[in-house]
Amino acid sequence: MNSRMQQQLQLVLELDRLKSILRRTRIQCADDRLENSAEHSWHVAMMALLMQEHANEPVDIERVLKMLLMHDVVEIDAGDTFVYDAAASAQQKEKEMAAAKRLFGMLPKEQEEELFALWCEFENTQTADAKFAKALDRLIPMMLNFNNQGIGWRENGVTRQQALTVNRRIDEGSHTLWEYAQQMIEQATENGWLKA
Amino acid sequence: MNSRMQQQLQLVLELDRLKSILRRTRIQCADDRLENSAEHSWHVAMMALLMQEHANEPVDIERVLKMLLMHDVVEIDAGDTFVYDAAASAQQKEKEMAAAKRLFGMLPKEQEEELFALWCEFENTQTADAKFAKALDRLIPMMLNFNNQGIGWRENGVTRQQALTVNRRIDEGSHTLWEYAQQMIEQATENGWLKA
Repeated sequence: MNSRMQQQLQLVLELDRLKSILRRTRIQCADDRLENSAEHSWHVAMMALLMQEHANEPVDIERVLKMLLMHDVVEIDAGDTFVYDAAASAQQKEKEMAAAKRLFGMLPKEQEEELFALWCEFENTQTADAKFAKALDRLIPMMLNFNNQGIGWRENGVTRQQALTVNRRIDEGSHTLWEYAQQMIEQATENGWLKA
Repeated sequence: MNSRMQQQLQLVLELDRLKSILRRTRIQCADDRLENSAEHSWHVAMMALLMQEHANEPVDIERVLKMLLMHDVVEIDAGDTFVYDAAASAQQKEKEMAAAKRLFGMLPKEQEEELFALWCEFENTQTADAKFAKALDRLIPMMLNFNNQGIGWRENGVTRQQALTVNRRIDEGSHTLWEYAQQMIEQATENGWLKA
């Protein structure tokens, strides 16, 4: 086996650990359990595949899919941070950068550089591809929460204002999806799932 | 909200159910539990992203990623079939076809046709993209099993000959990955994890 392949296979095995990183979102059906970051990454990539036409600007779906598949792998070292926990989110940046360096650093050099750059692009969210990817990453937990009687919001005492602030960047990726998100926020507030 | 978006969002929510479909593979670390088909789909798509260079023929990675993201969604209706259970696998075809028609049928017509065709291409495994995707789908549970003391093989009494027969099609997608798979099979047989 050549050494490039060996390096890549080592990372594939390491990625198995993302299946044990739990988020604050619950899956809807059958089992009553928290979602993990691996299945979330699949779900949001599927969403991109299905909803590309709703991006504000044309996107390169191959790049969007790669970003979304990779965006949470750093949680293998850094853990998941609840999007509404502002203090933890600030500290998280540094931990995630170190994790990205370690994990992509397992790959052959030019592959490391390519994938690390793509991961940074998603984090910095300045390009059309990254803005659309980030919008979906914000929207999908809202959808799951909303369709689950807002359980994630209720359990964590999230307010309407927090939901509006944290999720406003959906608008940068997709105006139509941000409209839909706002409708959910207002309905969830009316239902008492988000604090007024 | 326009009706295209409504149809797509309905399918996104429906896809949540794939997180409750359990496979025969165990995840390696932390929790001792079976892998579900959603996290498997993420893992195998990541593998494609990392290992594209090992395909026998050049592949279009965008199409490979889409195939791998979608390949198991039919299990929402049809359930997972153990790859070594030949009798169940034969019956499964029909159930999966009905599931594909129902699930992709939730989408706007032209999108349904495009994604259904891509799903069929993966199933029929005649193109370079589908052969590479299928090779990875066969290889990754072997890797997880091998790195978990062959537990999935031991629990299900799988033989060396079955492993060689079922996984031979890895060779159609990647000769180098098939060489690696054969090494694992021989080592697993020596270790007593696969029956001789």
